[in-house]
Amino acid sequence: MAADSVKCACFWSLLLILCLRVSLAKKYRSSLDDDLLLPYANGHGPAHSHRHVRVCQPIIYGNTTHESSPPRHQTGQPVAESNVFVTNAPSGWVYGRLTVVHDPLQTLSVLEPGGPDGCKNNRRVSVEETAKAAGCLYAQNAGFFNTKSGQCLGNVVSNGRLVQDSGGVQNAQFGIRRDGSLIFGYLSQEDVLDQSNPFVQLVSGVIWLLREGEIYITQSLEAECGKSQETGNLSYFVNVVSARTAVGHDADGNIILFQIDGQTGNRGMNLWDVATFLKEQGVVNAINLDGGGSSTCVINGSLASYPSDHCTSDNRWRCGRDVSTIFCVHQKSCKPENCSGHGECVGGLCRCGRGWQGEACDSLLCQPSQCGSHGVCTPNGCVCDAGWRGENCSYECVRGFYGDGCNHTCSCVNGGSCDPVHGRCACPPGFHGDTCDQVCPLGFFGLSCAQECHCDDLCPCDPQTGTCNATLQGETNYTIHRGQWQRLLSLSHSS
Amino acid sequence: MAADSVKCACFWSLLLILCLRVSLAKKYRSSLDDDLLLPYANGHGPAHSHRHVRVCQPIIYGNTTHESSPPRHQTGQPVAESNVFVTNAPSGWVYGRLTVVHDPLQTLSVLEPGGPDGCKNNRRVSVEETAKAAGCLYAQNAGFFNTKSGQCLGNVVSNGRLVQDSGGVQNAQFGIRRDGSLIFGYLSQEDVLDQSNPFVQLVSGVIWLLREGEIYITQSLEAECGKSQETGNLSYFVNVVSARTAVGHDADGNIILFQIDGQTGNRGMNLWDVATFLKEQGVVNAINLDGGGSSTCVINGSLASYPSDHCTSDNRWRCGRDVSTIFCVHQKSCKPENCSGHGECVGGLCRCGRGWQGEACDSLLCQPSQCGSHGVCTPNGCVCDAGWRGENCSYECVRGFYGDGCNHTCSCVNGGSCDPVHGRCACPPGFHGDTCDQVCPLGFFGLSCAQECHCDDLCPCDPQTGTCNATLQGETNYTIHRGQWQRLLSLSHSS
Repeated sequence: MAADSVKCACFWSLLLILCLRVSLAKKYRSSLDDDLLLPYANGHGPAHSHRHVRVCQPIIYGNTTHESSPPRHQTGQPVAESNVFVTNAPSGWVYGRLTVVHDPLQTLSVLEPGGPDGCKNNRRVSVEETAKAAGCLYAQNAGFFNTKSGQCLGNVVSNGRLVQDSGGVQNAQFGIRRDGSLIFGYLSQEDVLDQSNPFVQLVSGVIWLLREGEIYITQSLEAECGKSQETGNLSYFVNVVSARTAVGHDADGNIILFQIDGQTGNRGMNLWDVATFLKEQGVVNAINLDGGGSSTCVINGSLASYPSDHCTSDNRWRCGRDVSTIFCVHQKSCKPENCSGHGECVGGLCRCGRGWQGEACDSLLCQPSQCGSHGVCTPNGCVCDAGWRGENCSYECVRGFYGDGCNHTCSCVNGGSCDPVHGRCACPPGFHGDTCDQVCPLGFFGLSCAQECHCDDLCPCDPQTGTCNATLQGETNYTIHRGQWQRLLSLSHSS
Repeated sequence: MAADSVKCACFWSLLLILCLRVSLAKKYRSSLDDDLLLPYANGHGPAHSHRHVRVCQPIIYGNTTHESSPPRHQTGQPVAESNVFVTNAPSGWVYGRLTVVHDPLQTLSVLEPGGPDGCKNNRRVSVEETAKAAGCLYAQNAGFFNTKSGQCLGNVVSNGRLVQDSGGVQNAQFGIRRDGSLIFGYLSQEDVLDQSNPFVQLVSGVIWLLREGEIYITQSLEAECGKSQETGNLSYFVNVVSARTAVGHDADGNIILFQIDGQTGNRGMNLWDVATFLKEQGVVNAINLDGGGSSTCVINGSLASYPSDHCTSDNRWRCGRDVSTIFCVHQKSCKPENCSGHGECVGGLCRCGRGWQGEACDSLLCQPSQCGSHGVCTPNGCVCDAGWRGENCSYECVRGFYGDGCNHTCSCVNGGSCDPVHGRCACPPGFHGDTCDQVCPLGFFGLSCAQECHCDDLCPCDPQTGTCNATLQGETNYTIHRGQWQRLLSLSHSS
């Protein structure tokens, strides 16, 4: 089936994941840890040096203790294709799943338990919980851990962050370098820490299953087995049937994730079966990862395998174990991952929020130039200076309004016009006052009433024009001087 | 695991489901239909009458050919709890899942393949596709169908809609009546069509596995086996190991959905194993449903089981078969289901869209009363009449504005005030004109300049008040009559 083969990216993917977490909220049930499959009595790999590994490997490999598959950038493919199988292994029927990841550099991550710092805090979290929180389309457990302390074992690089290095302990490694090349095999501490083309994902397994298409278990035992263990844990670990997980790559540079159900000693595959199966599927290099009760597959946040541990709550049922690191197959991520804080990352592309644009959502939708000299460009578009309006702030306020957003109403009367910024009234000739409500005082006229009338005593003066023969212009208003007026009166009486 | 045990409802659940469909878009791969498990050579159940079933059943049951579990309304529980198990059956290890549905009347549906009319159109659709489209939290295949024609077999009632009735063919039935009671067993056509307490969900299986806690297979064979088949298909169908699905209920009125993986003749359980297993889990009544390559479990739209059919595209892999009806465990649905077209149904509750409220989202957020006598209540809130503003349309337009949304500016000057509806100016005493821009004509004064001056010839009249001794009030404007003025002039000259 291919529910996890992803063709088209959906705007809501991230939201979806969020929702998935909320609407299907549940308490994760824990397991009894009753199917432990430990390669070493305690901790991880052998103490001996990388030199030992290099020396004891077959001559044909010279000094190369790991294999590298060159980067391939495959586009237009679904993120992953996952297939279930049921196969008749020597120990009986085995149920499992093979997932092909087409563009591992972009879509495959090693995640710490419960998210960043999970290893530092020795956390153990179910694959469901870690995968759901990270929005993984497909997930399975990955690295080994100390089942008592929870400590992550071996090398861990998660999304470019070196979480821990094994201090040179020699176990089979899988990693992806910054340039996309895929690394399988044994690494010196220098290799792990190398910064020229550093690892962006790295996890430690136990036993290099396939090297360049050939089963490499015998040589792995030589490389990974401490003297004390040659007849001990590790050989049992290799030869017992159990639930298993592994990671490999094919000739086209796809990553192959392998997971089978089982129970140590009863069901599943030993590592020879696993290596043979993977070889038949055309896998070129592969390493074995944590198995037994840890072997778990989760699709879109839901358990899609039959773990071997029983549930603590009710041992009729089987529960996924709280594990350490996981593999997470996810939509392509964006650059920058948070889309500059102004968008959502969907299928490797930033979907920009309102007001923002660009591949990284880092440039404003309105370019400053658009807002001209009277506005500022913001995520909400052009914000105009007082007195200006319009999408580009290119218009003055409409007549009768002024100020910020042209929200204030002018108070000028008598045809006074108002300054769009501060609302100050500019009065026509003949009027004055803050709102142009006053006619010029007697004896004055014109703009701002600045001019004096020069009419003979008797004549009033037109406040607009200052003309003296206004009297002959029919009915109009005059301004005459009180003194003049009294004089007229006295004259009239004296007659 | 319990990814499908749903505690809290999330506003986005529906959106989520939508997205799930888009972001994980894929073409559903089809199966080779190479693990067919048919109870009858062709079609469904025996021709013999319901009377036959009634007569041939053990005396203790009298005339009752089916069992009914009374409705229980359980609240505050998750929709469902799903557990995986691996059990050592006589034929070997068996992988499966038991899902407990707490409130089946509200959260369990029988769905036609690909949605309504799927049966009418003889459609065959993968469980993934039907489940994803319906937003099922958990789904498994249900009824039998003709693998050649695709025809749905037996009785089908889906969400209260009678899709088809079997015409009285006697096979084991499971149904839910409108009142929530759970029905298991054999039904006459009258029972199926009964409208007093009609079925809201109904599906036909083959073989009543458990009746009131006891294995009922022998009696089922008697009831469901046509003479011609007594030693034929049906007994093989019962006794062969295979992948199986079944439905039952426990003593608390929970529905128990059962699904195991397998392969006919190789892996899985025969019906005796299934009945025994269910009995051990405390199941009271249970019937067997379609198995073999049809047996499929889907969680949140993703395949979570190992089907036995191989994929047409590549027979290394196993693919879910395109089947007929399915069981869909979903969030509670709403009344009405579409929330009156004004909301989203989330966990059985309508989440109303903007402007709407009420359990059914059928009443407007603003009650008409809120908008008073000057507005109308709409989904966008109160829409105010011209001249009015405010959330409740309780305020007149601010001074200086009028009309629809108070968007027009008044043009009144000289302190004229404007009618908020039409913007007509009401002028203060002493002014007139459309915008109050004109002073009263000579000889007139007061409101609308309606009054005549009554001063002695010589005195002007105040246009506001009409007073005649305005002269003594210092500098003010007068309106005097041209005649008066000329007389004054002549007087002054004559002196």
